[in-house]
Amino acid sequence: MAGARSRKRPAALLFDVFGTVVDWRGSVMRELARIGLAHGVRADWGEFADAWRAGYRPAMDRVRCGEVPWQPLDSLHMQMLLGLVGRFGLKLDARELAALNLVWHRLRPWRDARAGLRRLKRGCIIGTLSNGNMALLVELSKAAGLPWDCIFSAELFRHYKPDPEVYRGAAALLALDPAEVMLVAAHKDDLAAARACGLQTAYVPRPLEFGPGKAHGGPDRYSTFNADDFTHLADQLGL
Amino acid sequence: MAGARSRKRPAALLFDVFGTVVDWRGSVMRELARIGLAHGVRADWGEFADAWRAGYRPAMDRVRCGEVPWQPLDSLHMQMLLGLVGRFGLKLDARELAALNLVWHRLRPWRDARAGLRRLKRGCIIGTLSNGNMALLVELSKAAGLPWDCIFSAELFRHYKPDPEVYRGAAALLALDPAEVMLVAAHKDDLAAARACGLQTAYVPRPLEFGPGKAHGGPDRYSTFNADDFTHLADQLGL
Repeated sequence: MAGARSRKRPAALLFDVFGTVVDWRGSVMRELARIGLAHGVRADWGEFADAWRAGYRPAMDRVRCGEVPWQPLDSLHMQMLLGLVGRFGLKLDARELAALNLVWHRLRPWRDARAGLRRLKRGCIIGTLSNGNMALLVELSKAAGLPWDCIFSAELFRHYKPDPEVYRGAAALLALDPAEVMLVAAHKDDLAAARACGLQTAYVPRPLEFGPGKAHGGPDRYSTFNADDFTHLADQLGL
Repeated sequence: MAGARSRKRPAALLFDVFGTVVDWRGSVMRELARIGLAHGVRADWGEFADAWRAGYRPAMDRVRCGEVPWQPLDSLHMQMLLGLVGRFGLKLDARELAALNLVWHRLRPWRDARAGLRRLKRGCIIGTLSNGNMALLVELSKAAGLPWDCIFSAELFRHYKPDPEVYRGAAALLALDPAEVMLVAAHKDDLAAARACGLQTAYVPRPLEFGPGKAHGGPDRYSTFNADDFTHLADQLGL
């Protein structure tokens, strides 16, 4: 880590959001359980949350390969949701469906996120770099009190990660060389795509992202930093 | 004002920046005076700042009408600067010119801005809607401690205000109807263009924007709100 510590600190830290900053699974489960209770429906809400999330990558891939035109993540989430409610025995009207779909605007941060980001913000520009659409990211961040300097979304580039347009586009909007930007994420494939565009990377595993008892496969030996959480990353960056 | 007060509070307040949030003239003058002192050059730095700013609208209009391709405000500022330094007797090398051009990333907020924005943020999404490019707005806001929820720039739309793409584009990124968004600005032409796109508007005159002794022509009778500063606007919005 001495080598990593002695490197020049990146000018900007950009964060993946779902799973890296916020606990999407716990947040979605809690809201589903509340709705289930109100409707007298019992189901495995963790399985519902997992199934919703499992549709995410294939849905984006259909946009990425041009099979369907660009659309924001809110629309993709709604299409997936429509296929799930019946399967789990929920009967919701259009208003209730729309409200449930916006649970992704109300995800709660991991315990260390706010305090860690406040420390990181002292020495670097901090921002999102997420496949969530702008409205989702702005509302989520405001509700969760996340102190971003800027919010960047795949929507700005009409490309989803891991398309290179997203990583390169964010660096360009900051008028920074990609090497001056570091992506922070809990997902090694996201980090690998960022490195292929010249960004630095920091791996922050979130072992509880997919629920208890899931292994994350150890450190990312290709990343400049491996940190247990955002406060640990702040330690490593001397912030 | 009773009628205005009883309206539904906008979901988002978007702010013009140069002149409305920050005192560009005072900030640019101070930096020019410092550079002049270091180079042993005396000049009317207020006149330099005014001349730099006077080139702003014509330069953007050349982009808006398609005479020159899209370019960020940093580039337009540099082109104007190159024509001004000689006229005011400054001999700067490339590095010094680049540093001076970035004075627009270091503009200081009006006295009420930070505190007013913190109050407005309690009840509304607050963001920029400026012709400044993203890097400029992110750096300016970070240095000035402006607590935005989001940063929107003309650069995201590759159109400069008052093109309608900018006002409509920002509302669309927030997934809001234009009528749910209010532009806050010290310039009546900006506000008129926003209203033509369906946004609400608030006029906050900044009588010192162009230096002392300049009249601003009275209230804007077309705007929902007329406020003396951002804390007064927070009063009017009940925040």
